[in-house]
Order: sequence, then C-alpha cells, then structure tokens
Amino acid sequence: MNIVVTGAAGFLGKKLVQALLAKGCLHNAHGQPQAIKRLTAIDIAPLEGIDDPRLSVQCGDISQPGSLETLIGEQTDSVFHLAAVVSGQAEQDFDLGMKINVDGARQIMERLRALPQCVRLVTTSSVAVFGGKLPEKVPDDQVWMPQSSYGTQKAMNDLLLSDYSRKGFLDGRSLRMPTIVVRPGKPNTAASSFASSIIREPLNGESATCPVSLATRLWLMSPARAVQALILGHELNSDALDKGRVINLCGLSVTVEEMLASLSRIHSAGVLSHIRYQADQTIANIVNSWPGDFHASYARQLGFQANESFDEMVREYLAESGAAESRC
Amino acid sequence: MNIVVTGAAGFLGKKLVQALLAKGCLHNAHGQPQAIKRLTAIDIAPLEGIDDPRLSVQCGDISQPGSLETLIGEQTDSVFHLAAVVSGQAEQDFDLGMKINVDGARQIMERLRALPQCVRLVTTSSVAVFGGKLPEKVPDDQVWMPQSSYGTQKAMNDLLLSDYSRKGFLDGRSLRMPTIVVRPGKPNTAASSFASSIIREPLNGESATCPVSLATRLWLMSPARAVQALILGHELNSDALDKGRVINLCGLSVTVEEMLASLSRIHSAGVLSHIRYQADQTIANIVNSWPGDFHASYARQLGFQANESFDEMVREYLAESGAAESRC
Repeated sequence: MNIVVTGAAGFLGKKLVQALLAKGCLHNAHGQPQAIKRLTAIDIAPLEGIDDPRLSVQCGDISQPGSLETLIGEQTDSVFHLAAVVSGQAEQDFDLGMKINVDGARQIMERLRALPQCVRLVTTSSVAVFGGKLPEKVPDDQVWMPQSSYGTQKAMNDLLLSDYSRKGFLDGRSLRMPTIVVRPGKPNTAASSFASSIIREPLNGESATCPVSLATRLWLMSPARAVQALILGHELNSDALDKGRVINLCGLSVTVEEMLASLSRIHSAGVLSHIRYQADQTIANIVNSWPGDFHASYARQLGFQANESFDEMVREYLAESGAAESRC
Repeated sequence: MNIVVTGAAGFLGKKLVQALLAKGCLHNAHGQPQAIKRLTAIDIAPLEGIDDPRLSVQCGDISQPGSLETLIGEQTDSVFHLAAVVSGQAEQDFDLGMKINVDGARQIMERLRALPQCVRLVTTSSVAVFGGKLPEKVPDDQVWMPQSSYGTQKAMNDLLLSDYSRKGFLDGRSLRMPTIVVRPGKPNTAASSFASSIIREPLNGESATCPVSLATRLWLMSPARAVQALILGHELNSDALDKGRVINLCGLSVTVEEMLASLSRIHSAGVLSHIRYQADQTIANIVNSWPGDFHASYARQLGFQANESFDEMVREYLAESGAAESRC
C-alpha cells in the first residue's frame, strides 16, 4: 500500500505519519488489510525526526501547478490531505487561504481524478463551517454559515470532495475536526490557538493570555483522538457512508471555565495565576461563531469516539510532553 | 447608475434587462433611487431584439482571464450575474460546469473586489444545493447536500459570495431560485426542463415527454416572479440581510399531477394526450433529490412573494407567448 500525507510536517501530520508507520497496514478499497510499503510525506518544510525505510520525505507546495504529478501517481492508494492555512492566517491573508485551502485541495482532487484507480482521500474540515443563529447542540443537518474565510474554504472543499466522490473520481472522506487541544509547541495564528495555550503554558510555568470569556463553550478533541479519527475515517467502507462524505466528528463540549478547573485540579490552584484575561474581540467573534456542542450522530454511528473528559486531554498532553504533572 | 447583467442573452437575463430598462431606476447603496444610465448586457451570444440607448450589448466569456476588465470597472454600481451552465450540462460536462459556474463566478467576485467601490452583486443559486434525507418542508437552516455537480457549484458560490460580502469586498445577494416554469422556447439540458415542456408543448399542440412520476413534487416560480425577485434582491438594504446573503426564495409547491390538472382545466382534458410518460432514471434521480417544498421564512420576511397558484403560472405563459388559451 502506498500512502501520501500532505501537511506531514505539521503537528497533526507528523503524529499521523508516526501512527501509520507504527500501525503498519491499512485497509484497501476491497476491505482487505494491506501492509504500508511506502509513505510519502509532503510539506513545504521537510518532515524531520522520523527514520523509517518506508518513509519518503518530500518538500513541495501543493498549490503550485504540476507539483503533484511526481508525488501522487498510479501507485498511490490513499491520500491524507492535511495541508492547510489555519483560521487566523486565512482571515488575515484571504488570497493565501484561497490558494492553499481551496485551490490546493482542488488540485489534489484533480490529480486523483486523473488517475485510473479510485484513490481514497481523507481530509479535515472544521466546525468553523457553522455560524449564525445556532441551536445549543448542533445537529448533523444544520446548515453551514461560516463566519470566517477559513470556514468558507473548508465548506467549499467539503462540497467538492462530496461531488468528486459521487462522480467516482475519488473515494473521499472529510472529517469536521473539533478544536484540537492540547497542542504542543508555540501558539500559532489559528483563532483557537488560545485553547491550547491556556493549558500548555501554565503547565510549563509560562504565562498565557485568555482572549475570550470563561463561559465560552468549545468543542474539543485531543491530538491522539484526532489521529485515531483520521485512521478510522480511512478504514471505513464506502458503503457505510450512507449520510454523505462529510462527518461532524464527536468531541467533548466544555467551557473555558471547566478547562481551567480541570487544569487546577490536575496541577494546582496556583497554576491559574499564569493566565492573563485580556479580551480580544476579533478572536472572540470568530470563536463565538463556532458551535460548542454537537449531536454528531452520524460520527457515533460510524464508530468515532470523543474524549471522555477534559482531564483525559490534559493528562494526554502531560504524558506526551513530559511536563511535570504537579508542582504543588 | 451603471448596471451589468451577465447571461443577458439567456431567457431570464433578457427578461431582466427588459424589466430593468422599463423600471428605469434602482436604489444605490445609500438607499436612494438612481436612474439607470447604462446597462451592459454580457453573454457569449449577443443579446438581440432590445433597442435602447442605455443598453450596451457585449459578447464575452466570463471565465476567460481578463475578460471582465473592460466590462466591469469603477463606473459599475451593480452586477446581476446570471451566466451559468445548467444542471444537466454541468452533470455531463463536469469541467465546463466548474469553469463557468465556479471559476467564472469567482472571477467576477475578484473583479469586484479589485474595485474601489463596493458593488452590489445579485446572483442566482438553486434548490439543487439540497439533497439526502430531507424533511417534507425544508427549513432555511437545512444543511446543503447537493446530489449534482450543478448544486455543488452553486453552493460553492453561495459560500464565496457570503464571505466576499462579510469581508466587504462586495455587497452580495444570492437567490435560491425555485424551478422556473413555464419557460418559453425549446427544451434545454437542465434536468428540470421537462417541467416547462409538459405545459408548453401541449399548449402549442406539440408532444412532450414526462420523465418523472406524477407524484413528483416541484418547487416552482414563474418567469415574471423570478425577475421581480431579482430586482427585489437588489433593492434590499444590506442591513435587512441579518440571516445571511443566501436566500431560499418563496415558491409554489405542486406535484406534476397538479400541474397537469391545471393544464387540462385551463385548456382542455384532451390536451394531456400530447404527453408521453417515459421514465428517465437519470433525470428522475436528480429531480427527486431536490426538495418540493420550503418554509422560505427568511425570504417572506424580506418581502419576496410566491405565485399564488399554478393556474396563474400557466396563464402568465399564455399571456406572454400568445398561445391559444383554449382550443376545446
């Protein structure tokens, strides 16, 4: 089996590459498990730190015409397309967002369409496709009304991937990811970046800024669950996808207040002193336009699973990062 | 006031151009009525048969890069973008549909974005954006799940127009048109073409084929109402658009059986002998994926109106076409 991962040097991409190599096999279109013989990891920056004879690290800009011809071909069985411009950046640089999130994704779909075999394509969408007046708990048949360019671009992809699948050009699955928390590393320009920062920085003894109100409700998923979901999204038989190719994943619905309560419970009450509360209306507007709770009935029917508690998510970060669990 | 109409040589485009020239003025962005001084009518084929000093007839392919620079400029106040590849053709020729319905529309939006003034853009979307499991009467917050490339492409535009409006690049309004019936002329490659044929051809003493079951429920609007809706869509103040830039228009919900009953009532029972019933699964699949009834609450709130009866729609066609009302 030949697998391609785009955005492979990103946080989730690298985790996925590691998980795929560790798993060693995936199901093919006929539902049979096949050993992964080759994994082509594409990103603008090279994926580093993984040494495996099956891995081929490639640098490339997926939005450049012709960039995919040599990387995706008749030998390709499946593509995990994760390369994207994040929400904050797509909002600031509209053209870059369109170029990567829409034209880049379309170019991948066009490349797959040109191949004789029907390639399985797993990609990520976002809860940012929702907005406007929403019920407290969003059903699967809720209309999309993105309040950001990122959400718009992801929704456009969802439509295109569904139509390419319907036409038999490829076998697509788009997973609407909850906000992934706790991300390691530094804050990025995603509007949701604070959701990791307010946990990660205090645990590392650093200060973090909370730009939204404590009552803000978020729909979250841990990195490990996200990688599990991407792999399950691939493994599902197409016959099971009777409600379409776009799946609102299961997540955990928590408020910022509950997140911080969990942080202080797991670490110490004093850890909260690292957090500064400074409203940022731009971020708050984007984040508040995203729903904080979903039914995700289709995802549950398909076997996707949410984290059980926010404590679990904090502990996953602690285990992965090696940050001290308690300094009190 | 300078107005541009694309797809101006099409059936609806020509009717709109005539209505705009007859009306003589439109409201500008400040809500003030302004005389229409120039109306640029763009289409691949030239718009013919209208003689008016305000009219400038232009031939051009909106999907060609650079084609719009001379046609839409700093003098442009409003654009009615109607140019599109119809549903049947977009399904048969995927690339052409993408080129005109997505890339062409995006090129128009990009042209407007490049201008210093905020141009009002009125365009048409379609009930073909809906599909999958639907309630009998579709609410405004129903998710889009197109079952055709045409519906996919229109939904992508709806998203883009909404985001361009949110960003202030233009002032867009996308009207989700019911199926327009009774169209004059010949059948076209729209999957809904039969809905006009089964009325028009019998009234003209010609034979027509009904490719769907009599129980098929359609969501219809007459050409005159459609033109009214396009103009109202332009005239609405942007402040009124509090539920977004995409509006599911009001229509009339009727079954094919009710349409034929109206035809025989207005003309004669014998007129139905012109209709052959021959199932076409491809057309039936597309048409049956479209909802036959909508709440259209937002449209009603904004002042849009549906036809009162199918009889009204048949009579509108008779009055416009001069076909004999009764030959019995």
